[in-house]
Amino acid sequence: MQRAHNFSAGPAILPIQVLEETAQAVLNYNNLGMSIMEMSHRSKEYDAVFIETQLDGLKVMGLSPDEYDVLFLGGGASTQFLMIAYNFLKSKADYINTGIWAKKAIKEAKWVGGDVKVVASSEDTKFNYIPKNVQFSPDADYVHITTNNTVEGTWYPSIPDTGSVPLIGDLSSEFLSREMDYSKFDLIYAGAQKNIGPAGVTMVVIKKSLMERWTGKAPTMLDYKIHLENGSMYNTPPCLPVYVINRVFKWILNQGGLPAVEATNKKKGYLLYDYLDANSDFYIPQVKTKEDRSLMNVCWNLTSEELESKFCAEAKKRYNMTNLKGHRSVGGIRASIYNACPIESVEALITYMGEFMKENK
Amino acid sequence: MQRAHNFSAGPAILPIQVLEETAQAVLNYNNLGMSIMEMSHRSKEYDAVFIETQLDGLKVMGLSPDEYDVLFLGGGASTQFLMIAYNFLKSKADYINTGIWAKKAIKEAKWVGGDVKVVASSEDTKFNYIPKNVQFSPDADYVHITTNNTVEGTWYPSIPDTGSVPLIGDLSSEFLSREMDYSKFDLIYAGAQKNIGPAGVTMVVIKKSLMERWTGKAPTMLDYKIHLENGSMYNTPPCLPVYVINRVFKWILNQGGLPAVEATNKKKGYLLYDYLDANSDFYIPQVKTKEDRSLMNVCWNLTSEELESKFCAEAKKRYNMTNLKGHRSVGGIRASIYNACPIESVEALITYMGEFMKENK
Repeated sequence: MQRAHNFSAGPAILPIQVLEETAQAVLNYNNLGMSIMEMSHRSKEYDAVFIETQLDGLKVMGLSPDEYDVLFLGGGASTQFLMIAYNFLKSKADYINTGIWAKKAIKEAKWVGGDVKVVASSEDTKFNYIPKNVQFSPDADYVHITTNNTVEGTWYPSIPDTGSVPLIGDLSSEFLSREMDYSKFDLIYAGAQKNIGPAGVTMVVIKKSLMERWTGKAPTMLDYKIHLENGSMYNTPPCLPVYVINRVFKWILNQGGLPAVEATNKKKGYLLYDYLDANSDFYIPQVKTKEDRSLMNVCWNLTSEELESKFCAEAKKRYNMTNLKGHRSVGGIRASIYNACPIESVEALITYMGEFMKENK
Repeated sequence: MQRAHNFSAGPAILPIQVLEETAQAVLNYNNLGMSIMEMSHRSKEYDAVFIETQLDGLKVMGLSPDEYDVLFLGGGASTQFLMIAYNFLKSKADYINTGIWAKKAIKEAKWVGGDVKVVASSEDTKFNYIPKNVQFSPDADYVHITTNNTVEGTWYPSIPDTGSVPLIGDLSSEFLSREMDYSKFDLIYAGAQKNIGPAGVTMVVIKKSLMERWTGKAPTMLDYKIHLENGSMYNTPPCLPVYVINRVFKWILNQGGLPAVEATNKKKGYLLYDYLDANSDFYIPQVKTKEDRSLMNVCWNLTSEELESKFCAEAKKRYNMTNLKGHRSVGGIRASIYNACPIESVEALITYMGEFMKENK
């Protein structure tokens, strides 16, 4: 099969090995005579897959199952915006506004009610940097950050220290792409369809001690406690998407975990950013502050919208490079180069960019 | 491949053809060089799949897209319990309590608030029949019924007439298993993992006119209006599960639609019930009222719990017949024989039941 060069921001590229393992499991899981999709979620065989996925996720992050629990929930990260506030917003919460997704999280917290304080924002410059040295409210119920901003192409170069205030992070579009002290977080959530699996499941990692701050005011399906007490099987989980995550975690562990993943991501990301910086009169990087540049979503402009459209159309036509169009809210070009994106795709992109520049400059 | 005889109540058996088509699409969708899991949900190729699935669903039901919309949402039918009340419960609603799932729907409506009236219940006899001739409140915001009760093995022989009061139905475990006047409903919802696909997606069919009664009080992700205005793509939908549904709908349409499906289901169901009735001193059917017997979930007891355990264990061991154990809340035996369950599996089950009775009576 001739693979596309897939730069989609999500649903996104997955490792070929994971596709092959999933296709096999869709036909006949482990020679049981049934598909992974046909197995009762309460069967011992599926349960083993589910628990292994939870434990492998913690292993990749270097977290202990004694301290953290893992949930696999439906409804996307957008549902987490609501659940977080429902479960942990008693009186006040601090949010940092770094982009379109952070704004949505803030909106949902305000719907739940309480004092939702935006303690820092980069909206004044179209979110093209990450606010630093933020003063947090010492009495906040939690601080919420969006560590990677898919649309704007920024990420936190380091995770802020919130002292004794619990830290909650939306890590969706960078999840498991780099080494990080994940224990700084009390709650991490990530829609799977960027770095760890297909659309339809969101992974939530909760520090057990955070539940001491549980409000107890959420309805059943939005209540973390109910999902935790039922091992994330209060109702039928998205079984097939979780299976794919299981294979992705094995793929990460087998290549040496996050140090190996990060090394590859740096190679890919620097290659592309270096090229942009060297040709910034034609390819204009959107994020100027280098340390804030996401190694997952790389965004740039050309000198006109017409040229940007032509760039995307020609990329598709000549080399089957897909999804290079920037998010409709910011325009420009975006190359999402998640964990599973091979370096060959980045190299091919740069070769094409050279050709295109020569023809159009 | 030697297929198991899969009697799981859900996730459940799917047509082999659907498994094969899904496995292929997981590797390389339509020769695009990417998996169906890797495609942007906003790409024209995936969008075509999504819209076709919505339209085919309506076609199977005999409903018009001018009158009805289709959503594919995460969070399971359990999340619909909450959404329904959030979106349509202004002052009072009528619920019929026919089983464990109906009870959960009632609980969630009560959480939202308002006058939630249980207008009929069969709880007094362990839900082993469907209440008839129910008097509905003429001023209710809606009536909610659970048309098939997965755990208890009952279904509505006919859909009640609620006059001008909107009718909302949880059809999860019988969805598209029989001919029915689906236009009697103003809202239908169904977790996919019984009759139409894998776990991780719930199909919601909403009559456009019902939205005139929308409360406007739900948070973003629980707001039908937001999902409707965005063609069920407000956020990333469960793309792969929807693709599987697409293939199941084609499978239904290609065999002649619901008349053909119902004919097969009647053959399978009557075969099994007739056998139970003929041997009811050993295999005791749980549902006595014949017209209330579900053709999807067939429940019976043996004369002791020990014998029931032995029945399940031997079935697995001798013939790879799986998931025959009844739901933990009612015990006994349950054979779920959904659309995709081949008649050969029912015949094999009956043969085994004969052997087992001879050995243990």
